[in-house]
Amino acid sequence: MSKRQVRIGMIGYRFMGKAHSHAYRDLPFYFDLDVEPVMQAIAGRDPEAVRQAAGKMGWKSYETDWRRLLERDDIDLIDIGTPNDTHAEMAIAAAEAGKHIICEKPLAMNAEQAGRMLEAANRAGIVHMICHNYRFVPAIRYAKHLIDSGRLGTIYHMRATYLQDWIMDPKFPLVWRLRKEVCGSGTHGDLMAHSIDLARYLVGELTEVTGMMDTFVKCRPIGEMSGGLNAQVVDDRYGEVDVDDAVAFLGRFANGALGVFEASRFGKGNRNGNRFEINGSKGSVRWDMENMNNLQLYLDDDEKGMQGFRTINCTEEAHPYAGVYWPAGHIIGYEHTFINIMHELMRGIAGNFSPEPNFADGYRNQLVLDAVERSALTKQWVTIPT
Amino acid sequence: MSKRQVRIGMIGYRFMGKAHSHAYRDLPFYFDLDVEPVMQAIAGRDPEAVRQAAGKMGWKSYETDWRRLLERDDIDLIDIGTPNDTHAEMAIAAAEAGKHIICEKPLAMNAEQAGRMLEAANRAGIVHMICHNYRFVPAIRYAKHLIDSGRLGTIYHMRATYLQDWIMDPKFPLVWRLRKEVCGSGTHGDLMAHSIDLARYLVGELTEVTGMMDTFVKCRPIGEMSGGLNAQVVDDRYGEVDVDDAVAFLGRFANGALGVFEASRFGKGNRNGNRFEINGSKGSVRWDMENMNNLQLYLDDDEKGMQGFRTINCTEEAHPYAGVYWPAGHIIGYEHTFINIMHELMRGIAGNFSPEPNFADGYRNQLVLDAVERSALTKQWVTIPT
Amino acid sequence: MSKRQVRIGMIGYRFMGKAHSHAYRDLPFYFDLDVEPVMQAIAGRDPEAVRQAAGKMGWKSYETDWRRLLERDDIDLIDIGTPNDTHAEMAIAAAEAGKHIICEKPLAMNAEQAGRMLEAANRAGIVHMICHNYRFVPAIRYAKHLIDSGRLGTIYHMRATYLQDWIMDPKFPLVWRLRKEVCGSGTHGDLMAHSIDLARYLVGELTEVTGMMDTFVKCRPIGEMSGGLNAQVVDDRYGEVDVDDAVAFLGRFANGALGVFEASRFGKGNRNGNRFEINGSKGSVRWDMENMNNLQLYLDDDEKGMQGFRTINCTEEAHPYAGVYWPAGHIIGYEHTFINIMHELMRGIAGNFSPEPNFADGYRNQLVLDAVERSALTKQWVTIPT
Amino acid sequence: MSKRQVRIGMIGYRFMGKAHSHAYRDLPFYFDLDVEPVMQAIAGRDPEAVRQAAGKMGWKSYETDWRRLLERDDIDLIDIGTPNDTHAEMAIAAAEAGKHIICEKPLAMNAEQAGRMLEAANRAGIVHMICHNYRFVPAIRYAKHLIDSGRLGTIYHMRATYLQDWIMDPKFPLVWRLRKEVCGSGTHGDLMAHSIDLARYLVGELTEVTGMMDTFVKCRPIGEMSGGLNAQVVDDRYGEVDVDDAVAFLGRFANGALGVFEASRFGKGNRNGNRFEINGSKGSVRWDMENMNNLQLYLDDDEKGMQGFRTINCTEEAHPYAGVYWPAGHIIGYEHTFINIMHELMRGIAGNFSPEPNFADGYRNQLVLDAVERSALTKQWVTIPT
Repeated sequence: MSKRQVRIGMIGYRFMGKAHSHAYRDLPFYFDLDVEPVMQAIAGRDPEAVRQAAGKMGWKSYETDWRRLLERDDIDLIDIGTPNDTHAEMAIAAAEAGKHIICEKPLAMNAEQAGRMLEAANRAGIVHMICHNYRFVPAIRYAKHLIDSGRLGTIYHMRATYLQDWIMDPKFPLVWRLRKEVCGSGTHGDLMAHSIDLARYLVGELTEVTGMMDTFVKCRPIGEMSGGLNAQVVDDRYGEVDVDDAVAFLGRFANGALGVFEASRFGKGNRNGNRFEINGSKGSVRWDMENMNNLQLYLDDDEKGMQGFRTINCTEEAHPYAGVYWPAGHIIGYEHTFINIMHELMRGIAGNFSPEPNFADGYRNQLVLDAVERSALTKQWVTIPT
Repeated sequence: MSKRQVRIGMIGYRFMGKAHSHAYRDLPFYFDLDVEPVMQAIAGRDPEAVRQAAGKMGWKSYETDWRRLLERDDIDLIDIGTPNDTHAEMAIAAAEAGKHIICEKPLAMNAEQAGRMLEAANRAGIVHMICHNYRFVPAIRYAKHLIDSGRLGTIYHMRATYLQDWIMDPKFPLVWRLRKEVCGSGTHGDLMAHSIDLARYLVGELTEVTGMMDTFVKCRPIGEMSGGLNAQVVDDRYGEVDVDDAVAFLGRFANGALGVFEASRFGKGNRNGNRFEINGSKGSVRWDMENMNNLQLYLDDDEKGMQGFRTINCTEEAHPYAGVYWPAGHIIGYEHTFINIMHELMRGIAGNFSPEPNFADGYRNQLVLDAVERSALTKQWVTIPT
Repeated sequence: MSKRQVRIGMIGYRFMGKAHSHAYRDLPFYFDLDVEPVMQAIAGRDPEAVRQAAGKMGWKSYETDWRRLLERDDIDLIDIGTPNDTHAEMAIAAAEAGKHIICEKPLAMNAEQAGRMLEAANRAGIVHMICHNYRFVPAIRYAKHLIDSGRLGTIYHMRATYLQDWIMDPKFPLVWRLRKEVCGSGTHGDLMAHSIDLARYLVGELTEVTGMMDTFVKCRPIGEMSGGLNAQVVDDRYGEVDVDDAVAFLGRFANGALGVFEASRFGKGNRNGNRFEINGSKGSVRWDMENMNNLQLYLDDDEKGMQGFRTINCTEEAHPYAGVYWPAGHIIGYEHTFINIMHELMRGIAGNFSPEPNFADGYRNQLVLDAVERSALTKQWVTIPT
Repeated sequence: MSKRQVRIGMIGYRFMGKAHSHAYRDLPFYFDLDVEPVMQAIAGRDPEAVRQAAGKMGWKSYETDWRRLLERDDIDLIDIGTPNDTHAEMAIAAAEAGKHIICEKPLAMNAEQAGRMLEAANRAGIVHMICHNYRFVPAIRYAKHLIDSGRLGTIYHMRATYLQDWIMDPKFPLVWRLRKEVCGSGTHGDLMAHSIDLARYLVGELTEVTGMMDTFVKCRPIGEMSGGLNAQVVDDRYGEVDVDDAVAFLGRFANGALGVFEASRFGKGNRNGNRFEINGSKGSVRWDMENMNNLQLYLDDDEKGMQGFRTINCTEEAHPYAGVYWPAGHIIGYEHTFINIMHELMRGIAGNFSPEPNFADGYRNQLVLDAVERSALTKQWVTIPT
């Protein structure tokens, strides 16, 4: 009668911490689960801040040292939402402690780290996932279904663009997302990693890439490390921006399709412009995060004269996850992508398997990220290891 | 071998004169016609202006008295593009002179005049049309085809809105389109007449209406009578605006559908916002003049999950008229609606019939206009005579 | 330090019950409140169903008789989400029991009932609201701010359309929303009530109306009373549909603006097509529920040549409520409108005032609903009492 | 009083021949010119076909050998609209004969040829242009004005995509546009050449590129050489497709901006999907051919909360060329881009200068095309000669 509990320990409580916390909180409200998620403990270094975050978001306890979460035997799952430079250490330690893991993207600072994380997770036999939440947009999941069932035919093209504009002001400070030692890369690991994940999910593996990267604003005032959109300048000195503001690459997929990818934080007017189009021999799809519930679908077998892109509001029972929310036309938002992914995670833990995207996906994603970065440096095409 | 000529005499040479002249000029370029349109003569009161217009637009001769066109035996077709108060006199005289006629909309100042025009045309046995050009947008004509072939099922609703904003400035002068003695009504005969024509064309006859009309700016500086968008104030006195700025009505169609109609020249931001949506038991269509090549189509028999409004770019061979222009995706514009209607007119003259919309349509349109106006005055539902 | 509790007792647990429950659950996560909402008890007639609903949605206890909620002294607020025929009895009893109240729309079966509810609430001095959730869409709230601060100038027009299509199949059963004795009216009280609320909120009071109503499918198989979109036929007999499938009306606002309103459940392809446009002397706004985060804004004082409707994604700090959710461009959904309204309700209870929309708004809304209905019956314009 | 004549001799009379002929025919109707274009003669190899084309499109005479046009002293301007392999020979001969020239794009088969054409034109001192008609879309020309006047600030990004889908059926025949000996390249010279021209026009010169090209359908049935969309298979044998179906490249602009370009004839559902977005430090623009009258504009200096992309219908007096056509909101189409370019050509001939884009632009465009092609072959970045 009473369900097996999955007691969660989360590290980090800012943007992603909020998104994950909310998802755990909402999960049983919407989904019928085989396990019961319990918001057991949250970890952060600032005692007062972490205490407040725990209270506000509904965590039962808190720790100021993340290692304590691994030691506690009332924790089953570790959720890692901290900056990228910490993922490998935390995930490997969590795996060794026998905890299940969900880790924010990109999985690590580079493929070598990501590979070690995957190995540790496999060795420990734990359930693991990487939080590429856009896979869990109903419209995208439905696009996947259309592609897999052959409705678009042979895929020839994918083009994806992910544009933001929040750091364009040269006086915006040097936050952690702009420091290589903390984040590994800039736009590349932050935004492009999402586009690569969608490419792998929807079209398949990339085999080779050629890319370019650039940094438009090369020096910035020193700012709060933890800062997001509203980060404050904290110092009158300037520091070097050693990560990319923008990145683009051309790629070939294993199935012969061509890929064109671009991500930038200098796309003025695009607040969160995550978009793609896929063209196949029998149809095409288009998607845009700013109206994320909609999928544009073109089908070649529509009658002559009646052909055109359809705007499908993916809020109907036929659409993945939509049935648990609201009647058709009553749209959902960004946060629901996290509820959906946490639902899969709980299914994985209940069934003892690692739902996709998991650390293997995170590792392969990192191989592409690394290849693009090396290509940008060497100005050569780079082959992705298989 | 050489084709029968249709020698045209046109009265009026401003906005509509330009649109019609251009259509005659382009007609043989695009369409294979059974007759040869000849731009024979143009009439206007100002000798210098009409001479210049003739030269610029390609007319062979000009007259300063429109009656001269009726007297000339080298004129087969009279094209009336003058203000509304002149239509009846000109058309009846032209019919009596045995000339074919195309007349701008609205057909007349009221249904009584329109009825006399229809009668005169019928008595004379001439070919006649009214220039409701929006029927000749390929997207709309294709919508008609879909409705007639039952693709939308039983029609339940039509809602049409026609918004402009060019007279909103209270200092915009009192041009002829704002004087009842010249135009009969304001927005009503100018814009709503188009929506009514589309309603009759696409859904069928209206049987009863209840309406309201209003004038937001009741006094304006005296301006050039002939003026359009750039009309100048010519006098420091003010005159009363005695026509409607806005009109709306509810109506019932003979087939049981409900109609909701609104037209205004106070729709800020809408330069030429002619739009409608029609809902049937099996599908719906939407159209908007600002992207006039597109038809939005929803079909209920699309598979579950793949339902949504399609954006059809009506530039393909399957679409009416589109085949004579450019390859798919290479759009046409406003002026092509006139080329298309003149093509029908030439077919009518070649085949000795009056293509729709003709004076009978103009008369029935005027019955609806009059009924709405009476309803607005009496605040009662008014039945449309059959 | 510990906050005053607001202990909630909710009656009804289906569509609206789910929406409200979720809102209470999420409220403290997003907003910093002066009171603490407690999901104390839920009431419903079916013991097993209400027990399960309580468990799933997070209510501490349940009752099978709503009157029990009024008797319990551990309940401060009654939330009424049952069919329309029960609102008056429940609300009046709740007010007399000294409970605060939030009631679903429409407030009652008619203005007389609504008036008595308002009176009872005022007499009891309790806090009361009506759940017109669309007022709490950030885009709409921002439109209100623009209008109030004069950015659109004098308002000339509002046109609103609310279209759904879930009952178009003639075999869809006769659920409670199609029975006059239970719901009072059909599309009118369900959808049009929302449009009227937005009209009153954004433009002001209506003074007179003329309307029409129609029922396209007049007999339906007997179905589950409680059913929504997936309701099942439960009987092989047919019953009469005695409410409207569609309604439209013309109205005049106290400030001189013209209103055109239409609602239908026969708008094929429109799942939840709640839309409006407002035109003023200096600008216009457009909104559409299917992309509810976006506001279209036209401003006349934009430079010549650069004028056009802007698509504002109302997810920025400048937009009402948006600051508590996610970074710009990370959209919210339908359910957030309820979180926002419950936030206002808690502010009201904390500050001992009844935030708008409250029972006075529900009553005035009902006056308009009643006037439209009488107008449709009498085919006369009907004046709205002030 | 009577104007100097510009007597035109046109070579080729299919798709581009039709577009150019129509433009010459309409030119004096819309524009006030300092010279008078005369449709003097048309040349084509098939006597009957060229005779009919001349009659239908309004040419005074015809020739079956294009060289005859160069010999005639009643020809001032040669218009070249034939397949790409003929441009160099014709243009050089025309220049040597002292004729002005407008030539279709791409200018030649490669940069070497294009360079010789430019040299010949310069040596002869004639007026020359290349027909990149998209520069003459009012929305694009207005975008240029905004960029040049600094409204978008420093340009960081241009991404352009040009997608068609007319050859996707593997049974579509091997027409001239698919044979390297005739067209030089496939999608690259046909579609990508347009995107490169817009890039050079709007952002500036590209300095280096890395590209990829692919051919998805490598063998096709032999078809009519002259065929377009409706080309017929004429032979049961198959031939090799030796040009690209799709091409993409990354590029760097001289001003530091990054460019991402893609063109394909395998973009299912995109009939003529010519699109771009440009992001600058102060604003962005977006354009799409399928709604070619609209420009999307984002301006950073819009007030907080009111920021968003505006849809500007570029049909107002403030927009280039729009003033000669129709009132605001009455859109123009594809063919008007040719009327506009011919207007510039006539201005050039009247003023004895070569308006942009001219052979120098065609040559520089070809340098980029060649560099992308070499890059695709060598898998290296290739520097564009300055």
